[in-house]
Amino acid sequence: MKIALLSIGDELLCGETVDTNAAQIAARLYDCGLEVNRQMTVGDQLTAIADALATLANDHDTIIATGGLGPTSDDVTAEAAAAATGDSLVRNETAHAHLVAFFRSRGRELFPQNEKQAFLPSRATVIPNPTGTACGFRTLLGSCHLYVLPGVPSEMRPMVEESVIPAVRERAGIPMLLRTRVLTVFGISEAQVGQLLSDLALDGIRIAYCVQFPLIQVRLRLTASPESGAAALDTAAEMVRSRLRDAIVAEDHDTMETVVARLLDERGLTVAVAESCSGGLLAKHLTDISGSSSYMRAGVVAYANDAKNRLLGVPAELIERHGAVSEEVAAAMAEGVRRTVASDLALAVTGIAGPTGGTDDKPVGTVFLSLCDHNGCRVRELHLSGSREQVRIATTYHALNWLRRHLLASDADDRGRSRP
Amino acid sequence: MKIALLSIGDELLCGETVDTNAAQIAARLYDCGLEVNRQMTVGDQLTAIADALATLANDHDTIIATGGLGPTSDDVTAEAAAAATGDSLVRNETAHAHLVAFFRSRGRELFPQNEKQAFLPSRATVIPNPTGTACGFRTLLGSCHLYVLPGVPSEMRPMVEESVIPAVRERAGIPMLLRTRVLTVFGISEAQVGQLLSDLALDGIRIAYCVQFPLIQVRLRLTASPESGAAALDTAAEMVRSRLRDAIVAEDHDTMETVVARLLDERGLTVAVAESCSGGLLAKHLTDISGSSSYMRAGVVAYANDAKNRLLGVPAELIERHGAVSEEVAAAMAEGVRRTVASDLALAVTGIAGPTGGTDDKPVGTVFLSLCDHNGCRVRELHLSGSREQVRIATTYHALNWLRRHLLASDADDRGRSRP
Repeated sequence: MKIALLSIGDELLCGETVDTNAAQIAARLYDCGLEVNRQMTVGDQLTAIADALATLANDHDTIIATGGLGPTSDDVTAEAAAAATGDSLVRNETAHAHLVAFFRSRGRELFPQNEKQAFLPSRATVIPNPTGTACGFRTLLGSCHLYVLPGVPSEMRPMVEESVIPAVRERAGIPMLLRTRVLTVFGISEAQVGQLLSDLALDGIRIAYCVQFPLIQVRLRLTASPESGAAALDTAAEMVRSRLRDAIVAEDHDTMETVVARLLDERGLTVAVAESCSGGLLAKHLTDISGSSSYMRAGVVAYANDAKNRLLGVPAELIERHGAVSEEVAAAMAEGVRRTVASDLALAVTGIAGPTGGTDDKPVGTVFLSLCDHNGCRVRELHLSGSREQVRIATTYHALNWLRRHLLASDADDRGRSRP
Repeated sequence: MKIALLSIGDELLCGETVDTNAAQIAARLYDCGLEVNRQMTVGDQLTAIADALATLANDHDTIIATGGLGPTSDDVTAEAAAAATGDSLVRNETAHAHLVAFFRSRGRELFPQNEKQAFLPSRATVIPNPTGTACGFRTLLGSCHLYVLPGVPSEMRPMVEESVIPAVRERAGIPMLLRTRVLTVFGISEAQVGQLLSDLALDGIRIAYCVQFPLIQVRLRLTASPESGAAALDTAAEMVRSRLRDAIVAEDHDTMETVVARLLDERGLTVAVAESCSGGLLAKHLTDISGSSSYMRAGVVAYANDAKNRLLGVPAELIERHGAVSEEVAAAMAEGVRRTVASDLALAVTGIAGPTGGTDDKPVGTVFLSLCDHNGCRVRELHLSGSREQVRIATTYHALNWLRRHLLASDADDRGRSRP
């Protein structure tokens, strides 16, 4: 099966919106063992859309298109699809009934403009939209199956899941089997990862590297048939593990956050954080997961110096003597939040995220981390580069990774300076 | 000038990575008055890349390609460009000298694998990469100008800025003029925005709506010449303002965050936040901007109930009587953080982000906000829908917007229940 994705919208070609839909649909297809051959983006012009549909239909047997089904006048995808299939645009009664019911159920007024969303190509079949006003539709472009979905990601996703994926899988006769292993790496560069894995001989497996700052994903993809290749995939993952060891922080659907959450839950430990330069980002990552209240006790974003004193009990004279960005203050912040909220563990971050605020002694990117438990506090000094956002994100992942390694009690480097 | 963008990478077609590069390049071109005609994505296969280059070169006079210049074996873009132009791949001495200097300056070892990044098509000219190892290059595909850049966004961006945009603008003879106005809207739906603006007669202006949850951007784009249209753009913006009024939270390059930051700075006021369900996200947004230490005193993420007591002084019996998610506790959290860190203003958030934790009385999406100043605390109750992430983001923007309106002292609805 040869599949193309078409993303439609001026906002994409003008760079106002990042196209997340294409990646989400591609990922779901890939999970099913289906690869996208080509992705294309065009603007909201009737001829551009109709041309792209005709071009893609020429050498693909499936097109999944998103965008341009909204209620406003700039949305013309249904009209363009009708032009491409040679159909007229008619009021679809299923789509209209959905609109009426949708607005009634939410006690909202049905604006005349919304009725536009019920007009579809005459031979199209509705793809239900459980969460929004715009129905999708499917139709044929010659022998090519065309699926058209709204561009709003939260509406598109369930429609792909409930309607498009089952239809495509049925046509392709594909069962659901594992075809990818993902090993997420932190703390070494892409070139180092490539070097460490360069001489791996992996039969029937394609290896790819994907940088998602500050993480690198090593993706192992089965190119052989899933049935014969399942063992090869396990072997390959084991070989990568033996090369990258501690740098692997998560596997497959796990993330740094889910791994840390599971380790905390398994050990029955609670954590608290005290942050300055990361401004709440560390607390945010620790609470990304539903159920985080079982291990996350509290976070303190002590931005002002006297907030460090008032909320965390950091002595003002300690800040005066060593500066707010210092190992002494990092440790006092961690101790302070641990004592105040009675958590088992505490992490603290103080640093200079930039772009202003750096000095010769402590340039932008200087960050002190502290990890504190019943044995006391240890401190680490980081020197990070990049934008304010990158320094904040990298800081957050260094802190999470330290916590992860501490929980695994397998941290060979974990012998930082001990503090009373 | 007819411009195409080509994004290269298996990780894009497999959905592992969202293509943010295309949007960033398109946005910068659009700022210069240049529109992208088509965007295409292909995988890391030599023939797929060479075919796409040849196809796009047929009906475009400029191609900007990103991706596939990395040090690992899966990166073949330079080879594919050489195949498309009929050149051989040779070691480019400029690119090689850059590699050597780059690694030396960072005290890093030059892995043999990195030398691959110095091999470019024989007639190509290097595009310098100030922040990474992979040089870009430019060359001709027939009469079409091809620019090839690395896919790492932080490396691609300065190269677009410093090399590609100046070159393309010079070829197009385009001066830098304002061609877009952006009005960012919060608190009403896309259909409502469309309805409110449906009968606007805007001559020489195209209007587009762009949902960036939970915000909607109304984009006014000049289709006439920039010289004659500057006044039309101002008039159009004024008409939109008169229709959408208070729902407009920011304009042009401003964001909710920069507007709130400026209002706090102008009024010389400080703020502190106390969060539960938003888990640090509100503090994160308030500290996204460099210089936020002038107004942001502290944030407390009081996830555990007794952390609300220990850090914020919320009486345990208040939580027992009303529940942690209640207007009483929201107000006590805001009062508590304001008193503790002596800020002028305080915002508090307590709610149920889900997907678990909801009850019949307080379903998922129930959120109480409190805003506190020297006159006391007010409370608002929200009922939000969507995923855990959406509830957390929407909560954060509701809180920021309340703060914005409070600072503007123009909040007609701002008569919530007063608390002692």
